Amino acid sequence: MDPRRGRVATSGAPTRDPERLFPAEARTRDIARGLYERVATAPIVSPHGHVPVEWIAHDEPFTDPTALLVTHDHYVTRLLHASGVDLADLGVGGHPIDPREAWRIFAEEWRVFAGTAMGYWLEEELHSVLGIDLEPSAETADLLFDSIQAKLDTPPFRPRALFERFGIDVLATTDDPLDDLHLHAEIAASGLAGRVLPTFRPDRYLDPDAPGFTSDVGRLLGHEGQATTFPGYLEALRARRAHFIRHGATSADHGVEDPHTVDMTREEAASLFQAVVAGRADARQRRAFRGHMLLQMARMSVEDGLVMTLHAGVVRNHSTATFERFGPDTGHDFPRRTDFVRGLRPLLERFGLDKSFHLVLFAVDETVYSREIAPMASFYPSVYIGAPWWFLDAPDAMARFRSAVTESAGFSRGSGFIDDTRAFLSIPARHDTARRADASFLARLVREGRLTEAAAGSILDDIVGPQPKRVFKL
Amino acid sequence: MDPRRGRVATSGAPTRDPERLFPAEARTRDIARGLYERVATAPIVSPHGHVPVEWIAHDEPFTDPTALLVTHDHYVTRLLHASGVDLADLGVGGHPIDPREAWRIFAEEWRVFAGTAMGYWLEEELHSVLGIDLEPSAETADLLFDSIQAKLDTPPFRPRALFERFGIDVLATTDDPLDDLHLHAEIAASGLAGRVLPTFRPDRYLDPDAPGFTSDVGRLLGHEGQATTFPGYLEALRARRAHFIRHGATSADHGVEDPHTVDMTREEAASLFQAVVAGRADARQRRAFRGHMLLQMARMSVEDGLVMTLHAGVVRNHSTATFERFGPDTGHDFPRRTDFVRGLRPLLERFGLDKSFHLVLFAVDETVYSREIAPMASFYPSVYIGAPWWFLDAPDAMARFRSAVTESAGFSRGSGFIDDTRAFLSIPARHDTARRADASFLARLVREGRLTEAAAGSILDDIVGPQPKRVFKL
Amino acid sequence: MDPRRGRVATSGAPTRDPERLFPAEARTRDIARGLYERVATAPIVSPHGHVPVEWIAHDEPFTDPTALLVTHDHYVTRLLHASGVDLADLGVGGHPIDPREAWRIFAEEWRVFAGTAMGYWLEEELHSVLGIDLEPSAETADLLFDSIQAKLDTPPFRPRALFERFGIDVLATTDDPLDDLHLHAEIAASGLAGRVLPTFRPDRYLDPDAPGFTSDVGRLLGHEGQATTFPGYLEALRARRAHFIRHGATSADHGVEDPHTVDMTREEAASLFQAVVAGRADARQRRAFRGHMLLQMARMSVEDGLVMTLHAGVVRNHSTATFERFGPDTGHDFPRRTDFVRGLRPLLERFGLDKSFHLVLFAVDETVYSREIAPMASFYPSVYIGAPWWFLDAPDAMARFRSAVTESAGFSRGSGFIDDTRAFLSIPARHDTARRADASFLARLVREGRLTEAAAGSILDDIVGPQPKRVFKL
Repeated sequence: MDPRRGRVATSGAPTRDPERLFPAEARTRDIARGLYERVATAPIVSPHGHVPVEWIAHDEPFTDPTALLVTHDHYVTRLLHASGVDLADLGVGGHPIDPREAWRIFAEEWRVFAGTAMGYWLEEELHSVLGIDLEPSAETADLLFDSIQAKLDTPPFRPRALFERFGIDVLATTDDPLDDLHLHAEIAASGLAGRVLPTFRPDRYLDPDAPGFTSDVGRLLGHEGQATTFPGYLEALRARRAHFIRHGATSADHGVEDPHTVDMTREEAASLFQAVVAGRADARQRRAFRGHMLLQMARMSVEDGLVMTLHAGVVRNHSTATFERFGPDTGHDFPRRTDFVRGLRPLLERFGLDKSFHLVLFAVDETVYSREIAPMASFYPSVYIGAPWWFLDAPDAMARFRSAVTESAGFSRGSGFIDDTRAFLSIPARHDTARRADASFLARLVREGRLTEAAAGSILDDIVGPQPKRVFKL
Repeated sequence: MDPRRGRVATSGAPTRDPERLFPAEARTRDIARGLYERVATAPIVSPHGHVPVEWIAHDEPFTDPTALLVTHDHYVTRLLHASGVDLADLGVGGHPIDPREAWRIFAEEWRVFAGTAMGYWLEEELHSVLGIDLEPSAETADLLFDSIQAKLDTPPFRPRALFERFGIDVLATTDDPLDDLHLHAEIAASGLAGRVLPTFRPDRYLDPDAPGFTSDVGRLLGHEGQATTFPGYLEALRARRAHFIRHGATSADHGVEDPHTVDMTREEAASLFQAVVAGRADARQRRAFRGHMLLQMARMSVEDGLVMTLHAGVVRNHSTATFERFGPDTGHDFPRRTDFVRGLRPLLERFGLDKSFHLVLFAVDETVYSREIAPMASFYPSVYIGAPWWFLDAPDAMARFRSAVTESAGFSRGSGFIDDTRAFLSIPARHDTARRADASFLARLVREGRLTEAAAGSILDDIVGPQPKRVFKL
Repeated sequence: MDPRRGRVATSGAPTRDPERLFPAEARTRDIARGLYERVATAPIVSPHGHVPVEWIAHDEPFTDPTALLVTHDHYVTRLLHASGVDLADLGVGGHPIDPREAWRIFAEEWRVFAGTAMGYWLEEELHSVLGIDLEPSAETADLLFDSIQAKLDTPPFRPRALFERFGIDVLATTDDPLDDLHLHAEIAASGLAGRVLPTFRPDRYLDPDAPGFTSDVGRLLGHEGQATTFPGYLEALRARRAHFIRHGATSADHGVEDPHTVDMTREEAASLFQAVVAGRADARQRRAFRGHMLLQMARMSVEDGLVMTLHAGVVRNHSTATFERFGPDTGHDFPRRTDFVRGLRPLLERFGLDKSFHLVLFAVDETVYSREIAPMASFYPSVYIGAPWWFLDAPDAMARFRSAVTESAGFSRGSGFIDDTRAFLSIPARHDTARRADASFLARLVREGRLTEAAAGSILDDIVGPQPKRVFKL
């Protein structure tokens, strides 16, 4: 069965519904359309994501459709894997493939993406970015592959041309603390019509349970010429943050399974550090260290002004066999329950009332939106509500999110949309989806007499540009 | 940016949409309007709230707009605080202010309330209660302040006049067990067109971790001439409940972080009590004592008939600095996960099947609605589903609530609406919001062929009046 | 008050709205109707349920309306109990009653079912199955009882006639591992127009905390002539599964409070088994044994191909007094929080990547849909998303379910609808409800430009028949 067969019939003809994602009810839909049109072509502000900086710096053509749209997008490969496809056959983990063969597998399995966010983004990329209106299927696989390949070989589809065509104002990458960031410097000097900023992502240097932690800390200390002491360790981290700030970074990103924070004295921390680097710390101590370093990162953010973004609640590398064969970020990371209220209390007791401190909370456990994040963000001047993340970055989830947070926190405490993606071609689609979802939510409030259209309009204007720039200090 | 600017244009003209909060779809909206009109002007039954009894007893004019609408409403002050306003500048915690200056801050920040429940209530209060159709803003602040002040200085805006104008049938206050309740007696004798009843709220005398617990228990025992023994302690509590009942109380309210209940023998309880009052109990023992006293309160409710309302799941005073500077109930109380099914089991094992016992469960963790509260309330004759509380007392949250509980528990197990507020002027708006939300939910069921309009009508009639009177034994 | 009074006026006239459960908005409703009509009369595939096999095998007339529609349906009796009815007066737990008297109680309390799934199903049964269009009430109780009784005494209302009239293609029962399944064999040989298959349900033999565990294990070992050793125990279970497979079983069902799984060596398991059967195991060890046996059941499913269905998250027999008086499954089972991601990790580490292994996860904690089940099912080829279960088997809950899982997992990872019921007459209503709910959800995606109507149509076709047959290996 190919549930998208219907689309094949229309191949060649434009298939994108201009009113896509708008509310069903006609009057509300009219309001949503009017609101959306205010921001439809606004510049893209992307303060957090995973686009490799080399793409923009080197501006080399994308090699092939498979590498660009399938292999490196774990949103796509995980669902193909669930459908019985071997990740190796998609080139995941660097396994050698014939791109055309892998593309055929993707096209044959296309139906599994029906109704998903990935399917929606891919359709947008094919149609709106690549200008190809062909439904992927066994029959169209080769034609699609060749059509896309032909485009990718032309200048307008090189990364920088697309960057400018997408109207990207700011794009943040995510980088290792020891990265010298020379590529960011090159881009800054290159006259690109938009900024590409680094983001400080120190997890591997803060989590004793991260593979290679001890050697990574060793490299960090060595790089900064610091002794293996807690003060030296903090100083090295501080120095790397300063390096990032000199290269335009405005935020530091932290990914943790559990938003657990711990306060302790310098002395306690110093001896715990020695136990941890010596591999003498037990699970409880390692968790305490991790929790304390999150608090130390908050302190540094208060000191150096980097916005602190916290992505919490994901159990990583759930399948050991997959991890060993394909590495991390290959689809087997799953959310778990998260407790921000009790977990972040030590950190907020220290820094929560500081108005210059920005802490943006991203969740994949949507129960925390109305229960924890909105209430905290509507009291602490430092706490901001992160946009729906990962599995929740989708139209229905966005509607649930707005409904869950707005009635207690309003719109002013949000982060604005974050695409958080490595799928470069999906960036316009992702931002457009958020704009349509927010226009739809606001339109409902207008239809329900809870906002005037003028009020809704200026709120949407703010959400799309000024808000993320304010929250991320751009 | 002022997202509400659009409203300013319409100042002077009526801005309240008569169909506000009704469903978008026209036919459903028509049904909702018809249902709403049945109950739009029905008397207000408010079985749980926090209006200071002095207001009704002394009937003094409200001092000024700021004290009335801003300073004492932590729903309002918390969002202003998140926006960078110092709570002291709003007069929170008794900090001295110039009311007009504080009002200007509120009016300048008005935009942050767009889309929130607080913003909706405030608009209702300004327009429907005070008859002022001016959008708060920097420009309108002084004019608004003066217009409201002028109203407050006139007899029709004195508390008792408003009480009667609001059509309040019953209003319950929340009171300390040692309160002599003479003000309630005075009101009862005053010929007010409506009842003002006290509610027994003993938390501070039951929780060893409450500040001043030992001295409070000492005062309780001394007041009732009881010895410092567990039987004396229970007897003193029983006596105070009887005092409340003599003054018209029909319910006892319990606020706990965790709905944890513990059964134990009289002997165990007696020795635990001695350890607790002597300050010798550790955290585990104090938690057990707290859990056992909740069970003892249920026993007393079975004996004396007071309805037991349980407000569970809030972590109080999350920010120590704020607590020390401004005191409790100043916006830094946040929900946490709650487990009613396992936590209440010991209590329900004892008293759950008693049909004369009424236990009303209020949650701020909305995941328990479909998972725990509706299933328990649709088996135990003693368990009732509390209306959406606090952060969930808002139109969208009410729709989620009805959707979550109705399919397994129907409408008969609900508590009816509870405004739970100290914001006296918001009482009509809060009840009107619930009536519109319930009419909208019922209208959808009618539109979906799940209820007849006649059935929906009589359900709504019941929800608005008879149901809360039945559940709260009014 | 009788909120359904409105219906009485229409008695005798058809009251079922042909567009019931469809979306409110007219265009979306039109799409939903069109989709629904594709599958409205499709054969019923019921891969999991609790209809007693004797009913189909013996084909005896149903004794009376009360036994058929009330006494044995804990969905119905629990809400009557909450309303103050004594379960004994309904005949629960085998308490002797006059069926007519019990029916009158049910009819008088009918209003409590307004808006519930049970009320909806009962209306469908009365109208669509029994052809009786009378609203239950005190006035209509006897007339209804007599009308239904008259039908039940006629051949067209005997179980097998109804089975064929309902268009049941496959119906799975749930059976004890020691059942000889001769009734299933008889039915298979009887020429019934449809299959009746057994399901292996071994909980009582796997859970040391189950009442009678030791003696049940003894009976199991004795029946298969195995020694009281862990290998003998496993072999006996394996043999019973083989017996079920020979009688057409395609799945094994597991009901657990907590989806906790544990891996351990054969040696550890063997000694733990001895401790458990000897009653020497403490709570922690019993939990570990339970968790390990779930992993062993998965291993056997990998070996013998039985689909593994996991129903997790229910605290059973919450009210001891009710359990002692009426037995299990009498309405006092309540959901609790569930953790599939961490709980199932040991099991999935072993078998999660096996494409021949089918593990279907059913939840009553709807927070896991978007957070845990959809993400896991969209990576592990073995994991399937179970349809909304028990308290969530209702129209609104189904809409929340589809919204929660589809954007990350699509439609291909679902189990298809499972009625999970003992209420034989409600089977068509339950499947029809799911078809209308899925048609409504798909229609919204079409209206929002996220799916073509053709795509939605073929997805719905698949969900209703091919999908459950694929997932349950039918």
